Amino acid sequence: MPFKKLHGAGNDFVIIKYESFPYEERFSELAIRSCHRRFGIGADGLMMVGSSQKADFKMYYYNSDGSRANMCGNGIRCFAKFVYDEGLIKTKQFSIETLAGIKTVHIKETDSKADAVNVNMGKMVFEPAKIPVKTEELHSFINQELKIDDKTFMISTVLMGVPHTVIFTEDLDLNMVKTVGPIIEKHAIFPENTNVNFAKIIDPTHIEVRTWERGAGYTLACGTGVTSVCGIAHHLKLVEEVVLVDTEGGRLKITIDQEKNIDMEGPAEDICCGVYFFHHEN
Amino acid sequence: MPFKKLHGAGNDFVIIKYESFPYEERFSELAIRSCHRRFGIGADGLMMVGSSQKADFKMYYYNSDGSRANMCGNGIRCFAKFVYDEGLIKTKQFSIETLAGIKTVHIKETDSKADAVNVNMGKMVFEPAKIPVKTEELHSFINQELKIDDKTFMISTVLMGVPHTVIFTEDLDLNMVKTVGPIIEKHAIFPENTNVNFAKIIDPTHIEVRTWERGAGYTLACGTGVTSVCGIAHHLKLVEEVVLVDTEGGRLKITIDQEKNIDMEGPAEDICCGVYFFHHEN
Repeated sequence: MPFKKLHGAGNDFVIIKYESFPYEERFSELAIRSCHRRFGIGADGLMMVGSSQKADFKMYYYNSDGSRANMCGNGIRCFAKFVYDEGLIKTKQFSIETLAGIKTVHIKETDSKADAVNVNMGKMVFEPAKIPVKTEELHSFINQELKIDDKTFMISTVLMGVPHTVIFTEDLDLNMVKTVGPIIEKHAIFPENTNVNFAKIIDPTHIEVRTWERGAGYTLACGTGVTSVCGIAHHLKLVEEVVLVDTEGGRLKITIDQEKNIDMEGPAEDICCGVYFFHHEN
Repeated sequence: MPFKKLHGAGNDFVIIKYESFPYEERFSELAIRSCHRRFGIGADGLMMVGSSQKADFKMYYYNSDGSRANMCGNGIRCFAKFVYDEGLIKTKQFSIETLAGIKTVHIKETDSKADAVNVNMGKMVFEPAKIPVKTEELHSFINQELKIDDKTFMISTVLMGVPHTVIFTEDLDLNMVKTVGPIIEKHAIFPENTNVNFAKIIDPTHIEVRTWERGAGYTLACGTGVTSVCGIAHHLKLVEEVVLVDTEGGRLKITIDQEKNIDMEGPAEDICCGVYFFHHEN
């Protein structure tokens, strides 16, 4: 079946049209097999491009382990570039239905190809019951103490499609990300686990972020994570309305408007396209 | 540029025709970029298909780190399937020039597509000076004691295109492969390092193998490694002339003739094909 592989800030995806494989009950299997790094094309996730009753497109997102996810920030930019470059839509602004709601995207074009994509990520959800976090706090879970072994971390958690915990730190030590990240990810206060972002504020317009992803481990960049970091930093008045964020996979730009709506802008790049030989008997 | 991705027993390769990118001085760069698991197509190695003065084809093999290798057992099967399926040759038996000499391959066909490939791997080289191994032994380095920490291993080393050390063991413990493997790989007695194979003889026609690859670490299967294991086991009269070998990536069949020539037969499978967007400015 026809496929395209793209990456957004080092997060890579296989994208396939729904009509090429119209068997929703088998999308999970297709994700596991096509995303396998040696027996398959190889990617962090699979996105199926479908039609929507409520938006211009519907994005079906599956992780490489076959689990379905509500939303993927780097993924939706690649999805948007794909549908635009394929000529499936002519306007530069359009809407995509995800399990985390309908997102509006805006294509930035060079030589009639999408080279950056702006995504309206909506607002962060603060209510602990919705994230979810087990706490006595009712309205938000910001700057809360969490003790791990003999060390106390100040953590803030929101829902940005998926649960995101943010820790501001002076020192972005990758060892800490890989040891503390998985402990917080599966901490008992998070009944559905959480993504964990470590952020160093360089100045009020510039942050550096490293993310430990729920179910995936350390990744080069996480779009919803970067969005959450900036949203919380802005809420705490640590940054301005426009923030550049550096990740290991590349740079994203976050803009927060007066109503607390958050826009994420970042790269999406083609890697290859062609035909995937999906052998039914494997 | 046009590409195809195949795997042989879980070892995956990007294959590109020389004429699609006739810049030999940049093959190493192309390997690093096309084999990158997130920014590229993703593979263990890149093979360029060229013409030869001495054989039907010339195989240029590069590891994902950009280093050139003499030979790759799983790779050459995929190379052979590629040229046959692309119609670049009509006969089922043909020759491929590698840096480890000219290899003869034989295609096993199903539905006019190559589904298994037999490769004449030639003979093992026993002379320690040629492998190379630093030792006082002149003729071979078989069943020699090597002490690591407080444990003594009986090791045998040959040259099968690349240096291969074999340890027979009752217990294929992956932890041991990953801890002892890298120590032996870089042991001072191996001036050019060595691949390290751990082999469990199930019966005289059946072996199970786990390989620690020089420069690459633990891999699902290593064709030259499996060949060396069987060659040494046969030399030590532990197995018969035909041996089935199980690796984590799949099964290979090794045949040793009276002149000690070794044939390796195993699978080669298409994953995908298409166009790779090689951006010069990246």
